[in-house]
Amino acid sequence: MISFELSNILILVSTGIGLLWAVYNAYKLNRIKIGTPNQYNNFQDDYQDHHSQLLLEIASHIESGAAAFLAAEYRYIGIVIILLALLIFFIVEPVLGQAWTTVAFLVGALTSIISGFIGMRVATFSNYRCAYCAQTKMTDAFAVAYRAGCVMGFALVSFALLSLTILLGIYINWFIKDYRDFQQLFEAIAGYGLGGSVIALFGRVGGGIYTKAADVGADLVGKVENDFKEDSPNNPATIADNVGDNVGDIAGMGADLFGSFAEATCAALVVCSVSPSFYYHPTTFYYPLLVSASGILVCFIVSIFAFVGEKEDFDQVSNALKIQLILSTLLMLPALYYVAYLTLPERIFGLAPVDRQPIHAWLCTVVGLISGCIIGFVTEYYTSHSYRPVQEIAQACGTGAATNIIYGIALGNLSTIIPVFLLAFTAFISYSLLSMFGVALSALGMLSTLTIGLAIDAYGPVSDNAGGIAEMVGYPQDVRHRTDQLDAAGNCTAAIGKGFAIGSAALVAFSLYGAFITRASNSLNKHPLTDLGVNSPLIFLGLLIGAMIPYWFSAFTLKSVGRAAFEMVEEVRRQLAEKPGIRDGKEKPDYDRCIAISTKSSLQEMFAPGLLVILVPLVLGLFFGPTAVAGLLPGILVSGVCMATSSANSGGAWDNAKKYIEADLCEIDDIIKGKGTDEHKAAVIGDTVGDPLKDTSGPSLNILIKLSAIFSLVFAGVYDKSAWLLCVMTTGSSGCPA
Amino acid sequence: MISFELSNILILVSTGIGLLWAVYNAYKLNRIKIGTPNQYNNFQDDYQDHHSQLLLEIASHIESGAAAFLAAEYRYIGIVIILLALLIFFIVEPVLGQAWTTVAFLVGALTSIISGFIGMRVATFSNYRCAYCAQTKMTDAFAVAYRAGCVMGFALVSFALLSLTILLGIYINWFIKDYRDFQQLFEAIAGYGLGGSVIALFGRVGGGIYTKAADVGADLVGKVENDFKEDSPNNPATIADNVGDNVGDIAGMGADLFGSFAEATCAALVVCSVSPSFYYHPTTFYYPLLVSASGILVCFIVSIFAFVGEKEDFDQVSNALKIQLILSTLLMLPALYYVAYLTLPERIFGLAPVDRQPIHAWLCTVVGLISGCIIGFVTEYYTSHSYRPVQEIAQACGTGAATNIIYGIALGNLSTIIPVFLLAFTAFISYSLLSMFGVALSALGMLSTLTIGLAIDAYGPVSDNAGGIAEMVGYPQDVRHRTDQLDAAGNCTAAIGKGFAIGSAALVAFSLYGAFITRASNSLNKHPLTDLGVNSPLIFLGLLIGAMIPYWFSAFTLKSVGRAAFEMVEEVRRQLAEKPGIRDGKEKPDYDRCIAISTKSSLQEMFAPGLLVILVPLVLGLFFGPTAVAGLLPGILVSGVCMATSSANSGGAWDNAKKYIEADLCEIDDIIKGKGTDEHKAAVIGDTVGDPLKDTSGPSLNILIKLSAIFSLVFAGVYDKSAWLLCVMTTGSSGCPA
Repeated sequence: MISFELSNILILVSTGIGLLWAVYNAYKLNRIKIGTPNQYNNFQDDYQDHHSQLLLEIASHIESGAAAFLAAEYRYIGIVIILLALLIFFIVEPVLGQAWTTVAFLVGALTSIISGFIGMRVATFSNYRCAYCAQTKMTDAFAVAYRAGCVMGFALVSFALLSLTILLGIYINWFIKDYRDFQQLFEAIAGYGLGGSVIALFGRVGGGIYTKAADVGADLVGKVENDFKEDSPNNPATIADNVGDNVGDIAGMGADLFGSFAEATCAALVVCSVSPSFYYHPTTFYYPLLVSASGILVCFIVSIFAFVGEKEDFDQVSNALKIQLILSTLLMLPALYYVAYLTLPERIFGLAPVDRQPIHAWLCTVVGLISGCIIGFVTEYYTSHSYRPVQEIAQACGTGAATNIIYGIALGNLSTIIPVFLLAFTAFISYSLLSMFGVALSALGMLSTLTIGLAIDAYGPVSDNAGGIAEMVGYPQDVRHRTDQLDAAGNCTAAIGKGFAIGSAALVAFSLYGAFITRASNSLNKHPLTDLGVNSPLIFLGLLIGAMIPYWFSAFTLKSVGRAAFEMVEEVRRQLAEKPGIRDGKEKPDYDRCIAISTKSSLQEMFAPGLLVILVPLVLGLFFGPTAVAGLLPGILVSGVCMATSSANSGGAWDNAKKYIEADLCEIDDIIKGKGTDEHKAAVIGDTVGDPLKDTSGPSLNILIKLSAIFSLVFAGVYDKSAWLLCVMTTGSSGCPA
Repeated sequence: MISFELSNILILVSTGIGLLWAVYNAYKLNRIKIGTPNQYNNFQDDYQDHHSQLLLEIASHIESGAAAFLAAEYRYIGIVIILLALLIFFIVEPVLGQAWTTVAFLVGALTSIISGFIGMRVATFSNYRCAYCAQTKMTDAFAVAYRAGCVMGFALVSFALLSLTILLGIYINWFIKDYRDFQQLFEAIAGYGLGGSVIALFGRVGGGIYTKAADVGADLVGKVENDFKEDSPNNPATIADNVGDNVGDIAGMGADLFGSFAEATCAALVVCSVSPSFYYHPTTFYYPLLVSASGILVCFIVSIFAFVGEKEDFDQVSNALKIQLILSTLLMLPALYYVAYLTLPERIFGLAPVDRQPIHAWLCTVVGLISGCIIGFVTEYYTSHSYRPVQEIAQACGTGAATNIIYGIALGNLSTIIPVFLLAFTAFISYSLLSMFGVALSALGMLSTLTIGLAIDAYGPVSDNAGGIAEMVGYPQDVRHRTDQLDAAGNCTAAIGKGFAIGSAALVAFSLYGAFITRASNSLNKHPLTDLGVNSPLIFLGLLIGAMIPYWFSAFTLKSVGRAAFEMVEEVRRQLAEKPGIRDGKEKPDYDRCIAISTKSSLQEMFAPGLLVILVPLVLGLFFGPTAVAGLLPGILVSGVCMATSSANSGGAWDNAKKYIEADLCEIDDIIKGKGTDEHKAAVIGDTVGDPLKDTSGPSLNILIKLSAIFSLVFAGVYDKSAWLLCVMTTGSSGCPA
């Protein structure tokens, strides 16, 4: 077992390496100068001058649009954060005037905001460079996109781990007078997870509505009514669509996974604080942090291999990305083993009926790691057009849009089976080994390759954007072809990332739920949880309402996208009517008005679903006490996981079925059905239905699951205080402890 | 309190009145003679001769198709029933050679089969009579359709109650030697519910696939490819579509609600058997039966009013149906009160922390009754085109099929909110009053107006069929107009019935779950349930897998409909290609081939989803013991209720949005968008997507919820025996009791 100091040093070294690697990659990106002769471009002529000019112009549109949206979004969220911080300060802090939880909450929120900004900046900085490099070699363009991913992945994870370590270090030095304080300390630290998660929620919902309002709006009015090509510069909503990729897919996803990381760590800390074996060796509290630190080192080594070798076709790129995922998983196995033996005491007691050893902790992380990897590949199977399920959907387009949609819904539903079984057994096995601490460890194990996961996830939208920019600049078709290949490879791996995000959310939420139960059952409470039986009426009430919340939430987000897309359609129609020259490029569309509409409507629409997530557990807890919440959370969890998986995969499958048809791969009755056929039109309808499901409501459900759990954990003490109402209601007596 | 004898007499009288009323209505229907001069038709000419000939011909096609399907279906299901009966006989019966449960199971199954047959016969007997009478007066046509509903409703409920009473009477006389035998007796009686439920499952799934394969197939190839009118006699799939209404909507729904009734009664009996206050007054066991008996009497009185007054327009018909529902609910309030005071002891103890009185039992039934009624009207609000939600969907068709579908999904999701809250509070309140017995009573209260509910539910497909027949016979437009009005009014009330069916399924399932827990916690078990905590790993494993089962199940049913519809499309295309004269009526299509295809494919496809429902609880119980099942059931319940509500209402809303557009009510930008516009095409796509959701997967989910619970209740003893495997796995010891 290692000392406090050595743990700190190890974490500092890992995060230092992570940050340096991010800076190095950013430096490499910065060296790509547009329009001047350099290693990527040794010719200088009028063609280049004109196109480079246009490239920079479009890039600055996207960049300023994204920055303006994020700034506005965070301004609004800032108000929510301040209100919540006041709420926490006045009603959650156990002693009035103390601010441990409040400070942790604010630090978590701030870290998440910075993470979102970093992601967005990196993406808007790289997308046009990627398009630029795609002029010559695909390998170079790949390197740009993947370097952007690395900057985001390593900066975000290292920064998050660092801020949490510093916070923990300060709290331990100032807070702990007695080993029993650990429990209270970790409850305060849970505020960090809550802060990150609240930002993630609004980021995901707001960004998700933005991106899909622009995308659906652009498709409806552009492709369906006016026959514009995808990313045509004549479509006024095109730039807004590209901005959306950066604020929705990149900033939103970064905040989401940062939240998972922060919450998993907090959950592990809260649940392990109940084991006496940890009191006696407080350095073991660093174990969850060291798991993440080792992940950064492993991912650093793995990511170097990404830049080795040629990547000149789809298969090479796709294989390189898959190798990144598999290699990091394999290397994590020994790394996790050493971390467990380095940090944990030889005997871990108080968590299972028998004493456990570090190897059991290792097993928990491994079960999580491997099931995350399998879930990822199952997701790919259901959403990639290399396999039967998506091909079947494409075939179903032969009888029209309706059968396409029926088959797509069925596919999404089917795709939940294996992930749910894996998650159920992962939770069961890790719980059997180390109780709720084991579950938290399995979540941490699943997230230990997060850095690579983030890098790959960010790679996708960057290369997607690069394609859009290449189209708008008017680069020749082979440039667009190269970015399309990169994007297609990114699509497959993005699906893996989504499966992974849902899976980790489920485990994180279950371990947070365990922490909530631990906290709410505390015998010092006035109304400690006693009857958690799933047949007890309050638990059942909570379960049933909980299972409905994802439906409510997704109805809100779907309608929001619908309304916002409709405003976009109106605006584009107006512009085309006022300036008919836009159609053939003779007049310039007003991109900024479209950006403003997306910004305004997504900010308006994000509050209702956001408040729903916060208010339902709060109201239920205030009126029915902690027991109802103890039913609510698993209800949200089990129903949300299924719906999130199904939504994400139906959407992904429709998207790829459309691409399958567009790539002239779909044969019905021996005739190839490509672009422009009725089959293609049916596929476009499916894709449009899937857009908000896979990019707005599906991914926000992840956060719903986690946020409701961590929110309840932080507010557990408040529910306890308010439980008198229920007491009065059921016993009718006025002698309930208030 | 009344005696055994008086209870029996009261039940016999009520069921006798119910049966007589059914016979009387059947007699009235039979008096309508086609083609001969009579009160409805005092002219006799060539026109009538020709049309009456055609009418009888078409009717006989539908009748023979429906009868052939049901016969084939029940032959297949018969095999499953025999296998299950053997399974029950050899592994469930507590003492080898005893057959109490097995016999009850077979009686339940047989009753359900007979109910399905009665419903189908009545419907195929009345539909063409309804079309015939629609030639002169709408009031007469209404009377025909509603009489048909009454025959079905009263025959089914009276017959079911009678067979259960006789079974119970025989069992009590032969079985009971000691008052403690009651518990075992009622566990055996639960077999009756299981028998009814298994038939209902296959009936719903098989019938649902049949009807939607024919409907979707007919629409895809008829309306989309060939511009046939709805119910055009030139479409080879038309007759199959009409057969489908009779076997899916009528026979399937009859079996479903019979199942709810049987299960709710069994659940009430099993859970009340634990209260000592019932041992001392065994006649109180008749209370659940008397609740249903009083329902028959009340509904008899109410149904007489249906035939009073003119029904010459939509509003008159619609109001008459709504008055039926509201009046029966209101009259049930005092009836339930008298039944409670007549049957129950003054003090009910052992079910709640304090003693309860009959008034508390009354309150439980009332809460169920009223919340059922509200759920019905909420469902109507979300699915009728008289209100904003459906109008909004119709408006969304202005931007195409994709927005129509997105809004429809959102609507379905939103429509779960109020019903779920109502169900959660109904369960909570009734549990607080009388524990699980209260929950069972609330389910019985909700089902006490079942007779009227069934009558209205059957009325809908009869008038729908009448419209189809009128079209095929070639009656003038005003006849079709009359049946359309009748059908439209039936659609609204059918939505109410669906909401009602889902709500009662949830309450029935929860009370069955309570019965399962009672049974599985019995301290005489080798592995009695101990830790039911929702945070325990096996419960969580069960919950998560349970929440996924509705997804799995609905994926199966959706794909089945897709495949079967595809076969239908192929067949119709083949017929049209071989005999081009079919298009304009010069050649006769081969209706029987289409019927054969629907029959064959629905029988093939019904097994996978059916077996899933039976095998999942069985396998999980065998490998992980009763605790995992105790998690599985609420998981299925909470996720299934939400999905069933959402599917049924999305589908209903799309259907009515299409009808709204077809009725020229939809105005977009001040232009009326009617039949043939792009908006209408978009609405047709939505309707086709909704068809399998609302008529196959949604209603089958009801049965999934109930069947998994009653199956587990009957098999609880078996799970107990097999729990050693889990014991070995977790403790590693070989000393587990086997």
